[in-house]
Amino acid sequence: MAHYDLVIIGTGSGNSLVTPDFADKKVAVIEKGVFGGTCLNVGCIPTKMFVQAAEVARSARESSRLGVDASVQHVRWSDIRERVFGRIDPIALGGREYRERGSEDGNTTVYSGHARFTGDHSLRVDGYDEEVTGDQIVIATGARPVIPAVITDSGVPYETSDTVMRIADLPSSMVIVGGGFIALEFAHVFSSLGVDVTMVLRGERVLRHADDDVSQTLTNAVENQWTLVRNAELTSADHGADGVELALSDGRTVNGDLLLVATGRRPNTDDLGLENTGVEVRPDGRVVVDEYGRTGVDGVWSLGDASSPFQLKHVANAEERCVAHNLVHPNDLRPFPHDVVPSAVFTHPQVATVGMSEAQARAAGHDVTVKVQAYGATAYGWALEDTSSICKVIADKETRKLLGVHFVGPDASTLIQPAIQAMSFGLAADEMARGQYWIHPALTEVLENALLGLEFPPHDA
Amino acid sequence: MAHYDLVIIGTGSGNSLVTPDFADKKVAVIEKGVFGGTCLNVGCIPTKMFVQAAEVARSARESSRLGVDASVQHVRWSDIRERVFGRIDPIALGGREYRERGSEDGNTTVYSGHARFTGDHSLRVDGYDEEVTGDQIVIATGARPVIPAVITDSGVPYETSDTVMRIADLPSSMVIVGGGFIALEFAHVFSSLGVDVTMVLRGERVLRHADDDVSQTLTNAVENQWTLVRNAELTSADHGADGVELALSDGRTVNGDLLLVATGRRPNTDDLGLENTGVEVRPDGRVVVDEYGRTGVDGVWSLGDASSPFQLKHVANAEERCVAHNLVHPNDLRPFPHDVVPSAVFTHPQVATVGMSEAQARAAGHDVTVKVQAYGATAYGWALEDTSSICKVIADKETRKLLGVHFVGPDASTLIQPAIQAMSFGLAADEMARGQYWIHPALTEVLENALLGLEFPPHDA
Repeated sequence: MAHYDLVIIGTGSGNSLVTPDFADKKVAVIEKGVFGGTCLNVGCIPTKMFVQAAEVARSARESSRLGVDASVQHVRWSDIRERVFGRIDPIALGGREYRERGSEDGNTTVYSGHARFTGDHSLRVDGYDEEVTGDQIVIATGARPVIPAVITDSGVPYETSDTVMRIADLPSSMVIVGGGFIALEFAHVFSSLGVDVTMVLRGERVLRHADDDVSQTLTNAVENQWTLVRNAELTSADHGADGVELALSDGRTVNGDLLLVATGRRPNTDDLGLENTGVEVRPDGRVVVDEYGRTGVDGVWSLGDASSPFQLKHVANAEERCVAHNLVHPNDLRPFPHDVVPSAVFTHPQVATVGMSEAQARAAGHDVTVKVQAYGATAYGWALEDTSSICKVIADKETRKLLGVHFVGPDASTLIQPAIQAMSFGLAADEMARGQYWIHPALTEVLENALLGLEFPPHDA
Repeated sequence: MAHYDLVIIGTGSGNSLVTPDFADKKVAVIEKGVFGGTCLNVGCIPTKMFVQAAEVARSARESSRLGVDASVQHVRWSDIRERVFGRIDPIALGGREYRERGSEDGNTTVYSGHARFTGDHSLRVDGYDEEVTGDQIVIATGARPVIPAVITDSGVPYETSDTVMRIADLPSSMVIVGGGFIALEFAHVFSSLGVDVTMVLRGERVLRHADDDVSQTLTNAVENQWTLVRNAELTSADHGADGVELALSDGRTVNGDLLLVATGRRPNTDDLGLENTGVEVRPDGRVVVDEYGRTGVDGVWSLGDASSPFQLKHVANAEERCVAHNLVHPNDLRPFPHDVVPSAVFTHPQVATVGMSEAQARAAGHDVTVKVQAYGATAYGWALEDTSSICKVIADKETRKLLGVHFVGPDASTLIQPAIQAMSFGLAADEMARGQYWIHPALTEVLENALLGLEFPPHDA
């Protein structure tokens, strides 16, 4: 038996838990795959590197409306792929080597294999004879793509977000099943790089859990870039003439050279042996934790996609900082910051959102004031010749505070930051609008004008 | 004699002074040129429309480093020009027509001509026989380009920011005299659209009044895009073989098909007859006003480039809102907001700045902490393959407040807004960094990491 002060399962956000607080303690780090987790290897970071190449390609293809006749002669897919993974793979490898060097110093020990709990504080790791036990154990095992049974049962080849960035060559056509953020980012990447993309949706719109105006504006925008197949219920998948053919319940068929499945992700908690512990799991697979990251078993914690209601790297990082503190400060626990959580989708156009949708705000009983501001009604929106992008702001008339802010348009992921800041620090929307300068004619005027469009009762009322 | 409650000279920001407060009063609006002022007609708005076309052209030309082989086949200059002014000219015309319709209702009267004071409250307008008098008069006459005598005396043809956007065709080469924000924006526009640009600088660097790191980083970046001629003292200008030849004091010569002069602007106050009034003028031509916009003559006000220390439209707008209030609330005057004034230069890369430079902060006696954060050390900086862009933050160690924030890089003009907000509302830099989410992997992480790089004493010290 090997006993540790701290056992960490998963090296995404979990890897950062090895703080100087543990310099004199024994730490085990268990990783069954590459170091760095989803974000580094198959998520946020590589996708954005592909997205930026896609942005540049799309900009060139669409430049003629601004009076610049440009064109894309060739997309060097393998160069893009090598550039991205030539940068990322060494980081993942370096992460492992760094921890393994830590082993030599006697502080951290790396276990390379899949771990399963055998009891509340004990684990078996595939490939190792000894049992691993820990005073404290952190479950930071992340999540993975879910594949509908109709596809796995069919035996057709398919890609997921884990694999599609490493394909050998660009296909001429691609079918993407799903309309959420992963589907949207890859649809942008591949369609902008010249692939004929067909997106298969369960409902009428993409990003259907977003605010209605966001979802509808985005749906309208992407419909000009790739084909949407709406209200689709998959009934079978077969090898088609040149790739894959999906059959839908209403008789329609959808064909493509390559199939990308992006129908959601589930926490990696189903093969962890949690049934041998007191750790509880929700029906959706997330480990049950309290606001401090504690499971029901004393000394066992969880963070990130394995347990969080937010599958977002910036949330996993914040949770990791809390757990890192809480592990060594049992009498001064820090709660997970789960209020004012923003997110972005790096599709085309970008989407960014923080707080409630209008429907959520109304359902919560707020007396709301709402403004939908067109980019095109601001100076830089003119420069962009923008005709479709929006910023939507929702505020409470009584408190004058923002309840939700949403962008669909260029630079959404940066334009939203002042709203995140205002909501995080309790700044009223009318003070925010007039109490600071907004550089003219920067695109930030979209948010300024959105805020100025809110209607509040007079201050002396 | 025609007497008015309010006389406004200039229809840039001044035009917005005709608020509902004057619905029952007589207002004269005097404009010698087109309505809308510098920003609309020859400044912020059209320049950004050209800049965006330039951005798209440059992105296509530089895309191969991201694995996308694109190229610019042709720049349709006349289409760009017609698109821009086909949108702007009707707005200027509509502004005039709107005010002239106001004349018919008896509320506002438009005078189309140059105005000169004949006394503290009286004016003559070229082309009109009657004297115009006003209980209150607002000088909002703006500023204009300054041309060095060596150029005007030479008789060579030249363009300024007032004219260069309307040239018939793109030249093959252009000499730009000046290294300030106007010179930089046009150098970006024309070089990105394919013109061979040579920029003639008095010193070593562009934007030499900026923070040293900003000036140096920008100089390095633009040097790869157009030719810099440094330490140049102009001695003569002549018609060259195919255009203009400038001679420098050290014997060098600079040639180009077209000459653009961008050596600064001066307030339009030198031919206003102010010598017939008690209104004082500074040596640099700015009308002397107090913090409320009042000149030394009771009832005579000034705002915008005619009097402001900031030649920025967002400042002129803010001053206009103050004067609009102050005109009708003599016992509740609002001061001009001259703290925390940001600005941006829409060159390539963009520059944005708010607050003090490091040198200014040190000279003011602050115990400073400084961080220069490379875009390239953040996730989206990787996606951009950025190797040169920076964010520089300067804070006071004691108060923990930001003193200055500067960006040289993509999206500078939007990325800076959270810093403007923090400085305007007094948010400490360390609270700002950790008290809110920064979407991963958005470019806002550049600012987050810059803030995290500041070093403050422990809170309990």
